[in-house]
Amino acid sequence: MKQIVPNWLKKRAELTPNRIAIMFEDETYTFKQVFESAKKIAGQLTNFGLEKGSSAAVLISNHADSVMILYALQMLGVRTVILNNRLTSKELLWQLEDSKAEILLYENAFVEKISTIKNTYQHVVVEKEALFKEKIANAVLQEEYDLDDVTTIMYTSGTTGNPKGVLQTFGNHWWSATASALNLGLSDSERWLCAVPIFHISGYSILMRSLIYGMTIILHHSFKEKDAIEEILSNSVTMMSVVSTMLMKINDLLEVGQLPESFRGMLLGGGPAPLSLLEDCKRKGIPVYQSYGMTETASQFATLAPEYSIEKLGSAGKALFPNQIKIIDEAETELANGSEGEILVKGPNVTPGYLNREQETSKKMKNGWFHTGDIGYLDGDGFLYVLDRRSDLIISGGENIYPAEIESVLVSHEDVVEAGIVGMDHPSWGQVPAAFVVKKKESTISENDLKEYCMERLAKYKVPKLITFVEELPRNASRKLLRKDLREWLKRELT
Amino acid sequence: MKQIVPNWLKKRAELTPNRIAIMFEDETYTFKQVFESAKKIAGQLTNFGLEKGSSAAVLISNHADSVMILYALQMLGVRTVILNNRLTSKELLWQLEDSKAEILLYENAFVEKISTIKNTYQHVVVEKEALFKEKIANAVLQEEYDLDDVTTIMYTSGTTGNPKGVLQTFGNHWWSATASALNLGLSDSERWLCAVPIFHISGYSILMRSLIYGMTIILHHSFKEKDAIEEILSNSVTMMSVVSTMLMKINDLLEVGQLPESFRGMLLGGGPAPLSLLEDCKRKGIPVYQSYGMTETASQFATLAPEYSIEKLGSAGKALFPNQIKIIDEAETELANGSEGEILVKGPNVTPGYLNREQETSKKMKNGWFHTGDIGYLDGDGFLYVLDRRSDLIISGGENIYPAEIESVLVSHEDVVEAGIVGMDHPSWGQVPAAFVVKKKESTISENDLKEYCMERLAKYKVPKLITFVEELPRNASRKLLRKDLREWLKRELT
Repeated sequence: MKQIVPNWLKKRAELTPNRIAIMFEDETYTFKQVFESAKKIAGQLTNFGLEKGSSAAVLISNHADSVMILYALQMLGVRTVILNNRLTSKELLWQLEDSKAEILLYENAFVEKISTIKNTYQHVVVEKEALFKEKIANAVLQEEYDLDDVTTIMYTSGTTGNPKGVLQTFGNHWWSATASALNLGLSDSERWLCAVPIFHISGYSILMRSLIYGMTIILHHSFKEKDAIEEILSNSVTMMSVVSTMLMKINDLLEVGQLPESFRGMLLGGGPAPLSLLEDCKRKGIPVYQSYGMTETASQFATLAPEYSIEKLGSAGKALFPNQIKIIDEAETELANGSEGEILVKGPNVTPGYLNREQETSKKMKNGWFHTGDIGYLDGDGFLYVLDRRSDLIISGGENIYPAEIESVLVSHEDVVEAGIVGMDHPSWGQVPAAFVVKKKESTISENDLKEYCMERLAKYKVPKLITFVEELPRNASRKLLRKDLREWLKRELT
Repeated sequence: MKQIVPNWLKKRAELTPNRIAIMFEDETYTFKQVFESAKKIAGQLTNFGLEKGSSAAVLISNHADSVMILYALQMLGVRTVILNNRLTSKELLWQLEDSKAEILLYENAFVEKISTIKNTYQHVVVEKEALFKEKIANAVLQEEYDLDDVTTIMYTSGTTGNPKGVLQTFGNHWWSATASALNLGLSDSERWLCAVPIFHISGYSILMRSLIYGMTIILHHSFKEKDAIEEILSNSVTMMSVVSTMLMKINDLLEVGQLPESFRGMLLGGGPAPLSLLEDCKRKGIPVYQSYGMTETASQFATLAPEYSIEKLGSAGKALFPNQIKIIDEAETELANGSEGEILVKGPNVTPGYLNREQETSKKMKNGWFHTGDIGYLDGDGFLYVLDRRSDLIISGGENIYPAEIESVLVSHEDVVEAGIVGMDHPSWGQVPAAFVVKKKESTISENDLKEYCMERLAKYKVPKLITFVEELPRNASRKLLRKDLREWLKRELT
């Protein structure tokens, strides 16, 4: 049966009009004010023909305006492609064309990237300030949301190299928010500090929680550890989303017992934190909720309660109430607790699939179970341990990096025969990519030449920090790249 | 898209095995223990052929065993007809036959009612203690629940006189529980005192919240104001469900400021409370959440926050986050705020309809909007005021009484020509039914004769407390009974 619920922001503005929705820089906005602003922007967007079923892309940063724009698009029923603002023009263009977004809204900060895109992209491109000067047309706001309708699309790369648009329905966001509340609890004094990018699901999910819970978002333009700590200490923050590099920086500056009791916890995503960090957090009284989730699950899917953070070190906890996890072997047989295999997830917050990629979708989604590609196991008590994110995934400062994507850029260079990427440990980013490259016999290309070549085509965090030229890559009989061997090579290279 | 979630009790036992699920008399049961007990009972029920899709009726009272039985039936995927234990044998039999329940489980306390039923009811009838002596077969517990599947059926009468089985899906209960949490908040120290009958949605919904939230239920066999207060004061109760007669009795015994701060509130259902009571509660520091809901909405649909209980006196608040309310006139046109009309409700906690009554369902459910038959309006701020429950509904100590049902019993007597029922104010029950009866010219039947006749056929609370013989009933041109006039007649009768 269809699940229909009223327009989230409108309903929230009716229920708790005067509660603070957003704190950004020196401004605060109540839910009523946010609704009025977003409604106005919806009127301005209407001038560009945006309506239910349209699709729009946004290139924005963490800013109150951005939140209003995202809400305006949601209320119009527009499918919003939320672009990662760290990507290069080439990468952005690829996603714009793949998604067939009818319009691109951007912030002036990204004007340089846009200038290149504009030449090729055959659609309307509108800068934020220009949008805000438009006359306010009569917008048709959706009175109701069908939980099966797609509301956002976020691109994620995969093992194939080409990023895929992950479809996120209203239902995915709804269930993600409610599942989290059933686990973490909920009070009407909730204030979530958002210093992770709102173009990622980690940040966007905080916006959805705000609407659904009636919760205040304290939004930071970017993460600065001192500002974050200052905010927690002076503004009654109850929760904060972090990746482990952020947590490390905060932990470094905090003293024992400095956090107020009203602060309930750090929701830690993007891969496990090292033992030393978790122990130090415990000592200092920083509650940490280690979690496991991805764009395809609309944020956290499993979460470890702080009381287990040391005892179950390295675990991402148990699947949230509406969610299920199982581990399978290569023959797709379910494995008993304790055995390693691929992690499968099922639940109402799991994406219905990838945009215009039915084959890929049906390969990864079987009987409602999504094949994450991640390797892990459940222990005897049912706690999830993730051993390897998508076998070859590199997580750098919370950003996912897919080796295949970098490899395909490298081999597109005329002097490169083949290339293999592995993660290299890094003190502040967790990992960074390192490359092994086989170049053509006669080529005189240098490491720097290749880095520059990548820089034009890949977001900075994806550019290999180390490139080693080799005679050949380690492959098995069926020519599959042996990443384990590459990791060994890297170890030797670094010692 | 289908919404599939894991078996609630099993999942809850995995997530928080050692948290207390139920406190009843001197016993406490953790979620793990409740799961083990319910699983055992499921095995015993399996001997009677109960399995997914079967239908079973239960005649039980508030008891830990009853909760385990209800959970066992839920886990087996059995549709459970939860009978009101105050009904007469005749009424119970009618519901058993209408629902086609394959088996009736009952508690020994109701053996007298059962003895009559047994002669007519052509199905298996099993007493609780006998069930518990059965061998434990291998039960097929549902690993997952499809939120569209019906899990419980509760009968409610209507304007037609015949009770109808309200279908309640897993989704109805799920959304009811989560909508309530989004409004009331949620912490892991939640303890809900249940002294309302678990055969009503007011009580059953507490069980579902317990599973979904991981919340402790403190279960009382029946409501005794002293015990309830003692429990709140000594056992960290956070919430309690009440109807206004219960609240009145509690309020009478409580002193100013006696309630601990951990007690968050009384969830008040079953019609509005009088101003004097609410004012007194406020003075004594008893937070009251006035609410509006019904069997068809799987419990509360709209709720008024305590801070508005005096300012918006008589209001049931606003529709919870996933819910919508509109008011229509007789031409089914939506009315503006301030105008009175029929209350329509829409939301994922609204029943898909009545068991085997497609016509009645389609009459009451149009485009997802359920026609409650209740009359009310929304004020300028969008707060709901219920003026008349289903025009003629009488609420007596939290029990719904439908005049048509009593009238049809009265006219079934050979000496009665016609009968009309109205509510009569009563100091402790709120209202009780009063009858106006036109008897055959030659009849010598007395008021007592008719009361006895009713007593055999109707639950005690439905038997008219006053019967007045009249020459004719007030009817309009199209012969519709004018209840307003009857109310005037009653006033005259009582002065």
